[in-house]
Amino acid sequence: MELLRQLCQIHAPSGNEVKMKEFLLTYVQEQQGNWKVQPQIIQGEGFQDCLLLVFGKPRTVIFAHMDSIGFMVRYGKQLIRIGGAVAETGFQLVGEDSQGKIECTLEVDEEEREMSYRFEREIDRGTELVFKPDFRETAETVQCCYLDNRLGVWNALQVAPTLENGIIAFGCWEETGGGSVGYLAKYIHETYGVTQALISDITWVTEGVQAGQGVAISLRDSLIPRRSYVQKIIKIAQEAKIPFQVEVESAGGSDGKELHYGNIPWDWCFIGAPEDNVHSPDEIVHKKDIYAMVELYKVLMQKL
Amino acid sequence: MELLRQLCQIHAPSGNEVKMKEFLLTYVQEQQGNWKVQPQIIQGEGFQDCLLLVFGKPRTVIFAHMDSIGFMVRYGKQLIRIGGAVAETGFQLVGEDSQGKIECTLEVDEEEREMSYRFEREIDRGTELVFKPDFRETAETVQCCYLDNRLGVWNALQVAPTLENGIIAFGCWEETGGGSVGYLAKYIHETYGVTQALISDITWVTEGVQAGQGVAISLRDSLIPRRSYVQKIIKIAQEAKIPFQVEVESAGGSDGKELHYGNIPWDWCFIGAPEDNVHSPDEIVHKKDIYAMVELYKVLMQKL
Amino acid sequence: MELLRQLCQIHAPSGNEVKMKEFLLTYVQEQQGNWKVQPQIIQGEGFQDCLLLVFGKPRTVIFAHMDSIGFMVRYGKQLIRIGGAVAETGFQLVGEDSQGKIECTLEVDEEEREMSYRFEREIDRGTELVFKPDFRETAETVQCCYLDNRLGVWNALQVAPTLENGIIAFGCWEETGGGSVGYLAKYIHETYGVTQALISDITWVTEGVQAGQGVAISLRDSLIPRRSYVQKIIKIAQEAKIPFQVEVESAGGSDGKELHYGNIPWDWCFIGAPEDNVHSPDEIVHKKDIYAMVELYKVLMQKL
Repeated sequence: MELLRQLCQIHAPSGNEVKMKEFLLTYVQEQQGNWKVQPQIIQGEGFQDCLLLVFGKPRTVIFAHMDSIGFMVRYGKQLIRIGGAVAETGFQLVGEDSQGKIECTLEVDEEEREMSYRFEREIDRGTELVFKPDFRETAETVQCCYLDNRLGVWNALQVAPTLENGIIAFGCWEETGGGSVGYLAKYIHETYGVTQALISDITWVTEGVQAGQGVAISLRDSLIPRRSYVQKIIKIAQEAKIPFQVEVESAGGSDGKELHYGNIPWDWCFIGAPEDNVHSPDEIVHKKDIYAMVELYKVLMQKL
Repeated sequence: MELLRQLCQIHAPSGNEVKMKEFLLTYVQEQQGNWKVQPQIIQGEGFQDCLLLVFGKPRTVIFAHMDSIGFMVRYGKQLIRIGGAVAETGFQLVGEDSQGKIECTLEVDEEEREMSYRFEREIDRGTELVFKPDFRETAETVQCCYLDNRLGVWNALQVAPTLENGIIAFGCWEETGGGSVGYLAKYIHETYGVTQALISDITWVTEGVQAGQGVAISLRDSLIPRRSYVQKIIKIAQEAKIPFQVEVESAGGSDGKELHYGNIPWDWCFIGAPEDNVHSPDEIVHKKDIYAMVELYKVLMQKL
Repeated sequence: MELLRQLCQIHAPSGNEVKMKEFLLTYVQEQQGNWKVQPQIIQGEGFQDCLLLVFGKPRTVIFAHMDSIGFMVRYGKQLIRIGGAVAETGFQLVGEDSQGKIECTLEVDEEEREMSYRFEREIDRGTELVFKPDFRETAETVQCCYLDNRLGVWNALQVAPTLENGIIAFGCWEETGGGSVGYLAKYIHETYGVTQALISDITWVTEGVQAGQGVAISLRDSLIPRRSYVQKIIKIAQEAKIPFQVEVESAGGSDGKELHYGNIPWDWCFIGAPEDNVHSPDEIVHKKDIYAMVELYKVLMQKL
């Protein structure tokens, strides 16, 4: 899990994913010699801070968002959210501004519903602050901020070494409602004719989806993907005897939303391990679910 | 109204419209020999569960959504909504899961704002349940669940026999915010250069739009379509002496939303009969408004 | 400021921007002889009521929305909003219907949260009413309804005379959530390969962005544009010694939203003078901020 630990350290809040993209680019360039198929690497002009890996003749694309939630300095000592970050007094935040590195403490005024930072000096307006990572591993679990979605990224990197045909798309802005999947999807569809997608992301532990019971296959969240596609995926998971849980929710969203509302006939499905302590510094995921996630993605990229 | 009755029986909640598409495909294949123009039938790969009928040299497209609202089994006996379904204890729901056909009763806990089903056995997670249809017809009205939008579909099928130039697009997911009109619109625009659309759907009886007073032409809902296009439609309706009511609302939406926000310069207008008891098992529409709707569509497809 | 005064008089609520488009078209045709570069004028079929001016070899596009907020007659004497108009009893509203010109008074029933008009006769259903303009100018400020966004339009017209390479896009429907930027962006990107955008619009005076302190460069609103692009803009503003204020907000939106969520990799940034009394008949902007806005746009269109 050392690679996952490293991924959790990288500063990449929504809108500023460039460091994550550079890390992944370097990683792929170093590792791909050992992979079954060397992917075409697509990035740079026309792709903002995104990264595409195209293996063989793709039929299906894995979308994994690189960005994280966090906070941004507004005016004076005020903080506002980047995405849906949990806020509690005492959370340690890290960042950097024109005067150097920052490690400060979050303060929440519940009555006023306002957030501020406690630090020895004023921080530049617009500075991004993210949770200070504290990576914890046991025999059964991993725990850290930003498992959502460094684990989704990590999952894609586990699939890559044996992937023969398929695309891995590392995108931006998922935590703030999207902004890159639209053009990635367009490029992929126009270039390769692909219309099948898997959303490699992390979901929530609920009364129906529990830690250690397998990877979640989502039948719906606030959106309902095409039923026949999700049922095909469930059948493949059953046949492969991979532990999975069917998720049925009326709220929430993912990169699937941009595929759903876009102007390409995507079949898409959210498949990911469930976590507890969502969007906090203490996100925790059961290893069994992580391994099931990787196994299912490997099978699906072959069979779909 | 036998065709309308049949349409109301078909299981096609948002995301699973395949049975409605198959019914329509069979119907068109059987009937088109008697039509003035035999349409090009477009469906299958690249169109998910949608269906397009292209007549002659089209200038205008009719969008009619095939999907319905309903409920989905979450965990245990919990139900969640598909779209904006009205929920009252006692409503009869039907569906099917791995153990067979289901006819069960909806129960609503108003205090907890939770919905569940009453049935002799547990129903599979993720099973879709829809209102049990009870089609009622009088000299003046028709009444059933899902007149929204089986009546919009039926309207398009009444226009088809004499349609010389135009497109009928049967789409999916309208009740859950859209998901197919984007790619249908793209295909239609790129293939035929069409940018005029009519939304064949059912609206609400309100203090300003009343049953039996004519088809509603919507000047706006939550969105405001291009005024010059709607005014052109109103003028055609006036000249043709077809009973109509101008609708002006600040809320609500339709397939027009996907056209409006997409990247094609669509002129669109919602035109439909008003119903009472919206999104319940007892949707009711006045026949005068239905006939006015069909007449107006026939004229508009010629004159626009 | 005579041109700005004229712009504020034009009836152009969202969905009915045709008069503003015609005014601008006439203005450009009359003035362009004196401009450094004569732009290609793109409008008419396929562009609804929008207007594009293309100068030389464009690298960046300025989006300025032409539409305004207002009110629409619903049923009887009821009014509903067009966009987020402030409503207070006594506001003077103007419009026109089948019986002629209208000048009436807004009445707000706070308890019932309903709005109506007071006028000598009933007004046609669906009639648009806008604030009656009262243009006021001092040595330091301009004040009128609809500075948002006639000032953004005016700004673009100040940049035009010396613009050598770039696009000015006058769009529709911004106040009701968009509807034209999608297809304008597509046309611009496909025709000229441009992916850099500036949103010429008016923002809010807040505790962090004050009147007279310079043009606001927005680091974010409800959306977060790509950070590297905004930082490039801030650097250019610093080097050019133009007074500016960095805005950091968690709410609000602009034409940038359509660029952000579309399927083209746009870099976009909102840059505009701040106003007080937002969306009321008394919008007020400091002239220093207006001049800084024009200066910054001139520099950016050269340097970006």
